[in-house]
Amino acid sequence: MGGIVARAPLHPKCDNARTGRSLIFRIQFFRMNLPAYQALTATFTRLYHYQHLGAFASWDQAAKMPPGGNSARAAALAELDVLMHQTLTDKSLHALVATAQSEALDPVQRANLREMRRDWEQANLLPERLVEAKSLAGSRCEHAWRTQRKENDWTGFLENFSEVVKLSREEAQTLSQARGVSPYDALMDKYEPGTRGADIDTLFGELKTWLPDLIGKVSTKQASESVVQALGPFPVASQRALGLEIMGILGFDFSRGRLDVSTHPFCGGVAQDVRITTRYAEDDFMRSMMGIIHETGHARYEQGLPRDAVAMAMGRARSMGIHESQSLSFEMQIGRNPAFLRLISALVKKHLGDQPAFEAANLAGLFTRVVPGFIRVDADELTYPAHVILRYEIESALIDGEIEARDIPALWDEKMMAYLGLDTRGDYAQGCLQDIHWTSGSFGYFPSYTLGAIYAAQYFATIRRLHPTLDASLAAGDLSPIFQWLSTHIWSQASRWETGELVQRATGETLNPAHFRRHLERRYLNS
Amino acid sequence: MGGIVARAPLHPKCDNARTGRSLIFRIQFFRMNLPAYQALTATFTRLYHYQHLGAFASWDQAAKMPPGGNSARAAALAELDVLMHQTLTDKSLHALVATAQSEALDPVQRANLREMRRDWEQANLLPERLVEAKSLAGSRCEHAWRTQRKENDWTGFLENFSEVVKLSREEAQTLSQARGVSPYDALMDKYEPGTRGADIDTLFGELKTWLPDLIGKVSTKQASESVVQALGPFPVASQRALGLEIMGILGFDFSRGRLDVSTHPFCGGVAQDVRITTRYAEDDFMRSMMGIIHETGHARYEQGLPRDAVAMAMGRARSMGIHESQSLSFEMQIGRNPAFLRLISALVKKHLGDQPAFEAANLAGLFTRVVPGFIRVDADELTYPAHVILRYEIESALIDGEIEARDIPALWDEKMMAYLGLDTRGDYAQGCLQDIHWTSGSFGYFPSYTLGAIYAAQYFATIRRLHPTLDASLAAGDLSPIFQWLSTHIWSQASRWETGELVQRATGETLNPAHFRRHLERRYLNS
Repeated sequence: MGGIVARAPLHPKCDNARTGRSLIFRIQFFRMNLPAYQALTATFTRLYHYQHLGAFASWDQAAKMPPGGNSARAAALAELDVLMHQTLTDKSLHALVATAQSEALDPVQRANLREMRRDWEQANLLPERLVEAKSLAGSRCEHAWRTQRKENDWTGFLENFSEVVKLSREEAQTLSQARGVSPYDALMDKYEPGTRGADIDTLFGELKTWLPDLIGKVSTKQASESVVQALGPFPVASQRALGLEIMGILGFDFSRGRLDVSTHPFCGGVAQDVRITTRYAEDDFMRSMMGIIHETGHARYEQGLPRDAVAMAMGRARSMGIHESQSLSFEMQIGRNPAFLRLISALVKKHLGDQPAFEAANLAGLFTRVVPGFIRVDADELTYPAHVILRYEIESALIDGEIEARDIPALWDEKMMAYLGLDTRGDYAQGCLQDIHWTSGSFGYFPSYTLGAIYAAQYFATIRRLHPTLDASLAAGDLSPIFQWLSTHIWSQASRWETGELVQRATGETLNPAHFRRHLERRYLNS
Repeated sequence: MGGIVARAPLHPKCDNARTGRSLIFRIQFFRMNLPAYQALTATFTRLYHYQHLGAFASWDQAAKMPPGGNSARAAALAELDVLMHQTLTDKSLHALVATAQSEALDPVQRANLREMRRDWEQANLLPERLVEAKSLAGSRCEHAWRTQRKENDWTGFLENFSEVVKLSREEAQTLSQARGVSPYDALMDKYEPGTRGADIDTLFGELKTWLPDLIGKVSTKQASESVVQALGPFPVASQRALGLEIMGILGFDFSRGRLDVSTHPFCGGVAQDVRITTRYAEDDFMRSMMGIIHETGHARYEQGLPRDAVAMAMGRARSMGIHESQSLSFEMQIGRNPAFLRLISALVKKHLGDQPAFEAANLAGLFTRVVPGFIRVDADELTYPAHVILRYEIESALIDGEIEARDIPALWDEKMMAYLGLDTRGDYAQGCLQDIHWTSGSFGYFPSYTLGAIYAAQYFATIRRLHPTLDASLAAGDLSPIFQWLSTHIWSQASRWETGELVQRATGETLNPAHFRRHLERRYLNS
């Protein structure tokens, strides 16, 4: 469901009025003699302030802005991108980065420098002209897409989108040459640092060996299980009230965040003020409910970052894969867990009216039903990876120049038929126009979703080892073992460690898809 | 009612996608050989983009932001203020301003240069440290005020406010010394360029010779006229729906703007996307209705600025006095006009239910009732100037150092008793804590309201000369003579002329309070 929009989480930010909760980030600048490191950190605080302005301008653009405001907004955001790029490419930083490397930094400061250096390198590889052009083209394409998607207008979309692809390829080429990786890998590195297409190929290849078979078995099993469908309409106000109450159970801090509506659900804002969105359909309460649970996972990660370090490069969320591991911990590991659905069954009845569909066992049936469908964000847990694999294969081929933008619909149709047996011909709205990511050139993001699902299963395997009666606690409304573990091992760690080490320290092993498989078999086959 | 917040309209901004409607602003840079002028204009376009980000961050802060987001927001806005100040104080501008003066500019370009120069001078007189400190102190004070006002907490407010006063005085002193005007005049110049305290003293002195007598006569007359009070409650959703429909009649362009809720109503955003706010009370539909009409006046001015010049210094609204003249044209000249109330009587009934109070004649009675009250934004047309004179006298004495912040409540009590016969002792919430202006250091703004009322009466005297049957048109729903005149003579002129010349060209004479007096006598005494 949904996703952090690419623009949002770049550099978290300073909040002097708060006292920190974390133990690992206490740094006292004024006792140090680290002039280059301090100057760099000050620059990143400034960048974080700029990013704050961009985060809320982007949130507003998606959630509140009237259509006539868009070209002015696009110009202002492009100006901000240029400003941030200029700040990161200021000649003085070159010497600061080099000097800071040889200053006597402690391990935490060294991690912070590593993160600042990553941003600095990323920015200095790209010419300002390209940054501005891509921002403008992306804003234009994304804005028009909101209408074009409704109108199934692939041709109109292609006009703007071709420019986005052209500029994204230029970006990818430039980064690729500098880093000696493939163009697509160079883009993916922005979202999941260190991960390569070869890793993804291996991982997705492994999934392909058992997932289709599992989907088949589950379909057969579910064919003999009856589930009562919920009867609408479900008024938007009631769905919203239910969503807000569930957010409360899931620990969302409303003094530092909001829930709104947008075409494409996302989590934006900054750690001190997290804005999540959803979309409502009167005939379907499940989509908004699960969407809200998903985005609340993103939100708690942001709200749980160490408060005294939010302005620092090291204080931000680790990666998009880890971000998705939080939203999918909430959506898949908690939200679709029959124990949790037992807990909230009464709430669903309270807000949407009492009906047989809302009995706990039936809710579990509804939320674990496996049905291949057109829309990724509405996909069930088992077929979701197929949506991601399809997008990964198309976007990597597109960026590496093996296909052109105009080839996408045909490829989409072919792969949807091959992976999910669905005919999408001519239906762009429910096909390749459904996602926001490509519209603004966020290529390389999609693998994060399935990485996130695999990480999440691995976390919960660990949590269950520590709390063998986890489901009983969940059903009784005690989610604290989960929040405590996530807070200690993920949220409070921010970008202290590289992704591999973060996961290793948290779970005792590196990424291991066996947990994901075991989780799915346990939930869907009771095995 | 309400007001443009001080932060909002600094420099309008570029919207390439639109074609211009104005004839006076067509400038083709690439055919010109005006390098300094062009470079200056490019800098101001950049500033306009920055200002865009600030405008929406401020709107969000007032209308959407959860409380926990404030310190991060304040830091980001302070950073933006510093950035804009640095941009305007960049050493290169000094030569550009000087060189542009001697380039072969046409009259429109010369007007644009005059406006750019005004901003440049204003910024270059103030040290960056002061700009940042004032922004931070203002944000902090304004944010805390939202709670303190509710809690009648003058002592708590004074703690933050003393810092705002200290920094505002420092600003005023600095500007005063450079320009050879009084400290207060130096601040007022930001909102109403060219106007001096001596002018205001004369004008307010003139009002004082006839206004108290008029208030007395009207009170006597109205004592024998009965008005039926409307019976609430009026649900917020119904008030909002009524407000939206009236905004439509008043020509608000919803594709380029929104209506939201905030503690203190304001008009913000940018010309391409104007955000107005109101506040609702279930027992009072009049406040939100007239508030919306007032802010719609501000909004139409912004929406009516020449679209091809919004990014230019000359393309922005003329001054705060002229801005208020638009809101008061809408609120006083249109909104409280019995002919207009005849037009919307059916709408009021449609949204709030049919009751005797909503008959056209009674609505007119309700909206022209003269009752001295505590709250400026709820004041009737006749007593409103007394609220402004009180604030003007206090703020000018405060900035010129004749009184201290702690003296305000006693002075407030004394003047409210003297001017309106009301006892405000101990009631800060309905006394000196009621307005937002001082919280962020916007001293010098208040006179704009009464200047605006006087300008508005003068415009309508002109419009009525051209359209003797204006009230009949209004009652029949034809507001086009008004909109056409305002668009031609005020909105489309932006900052092409200095204030005095704008008014002279529009009405054939300079500011003349006789029209205001005649308007009031005609409306309130039928004379």
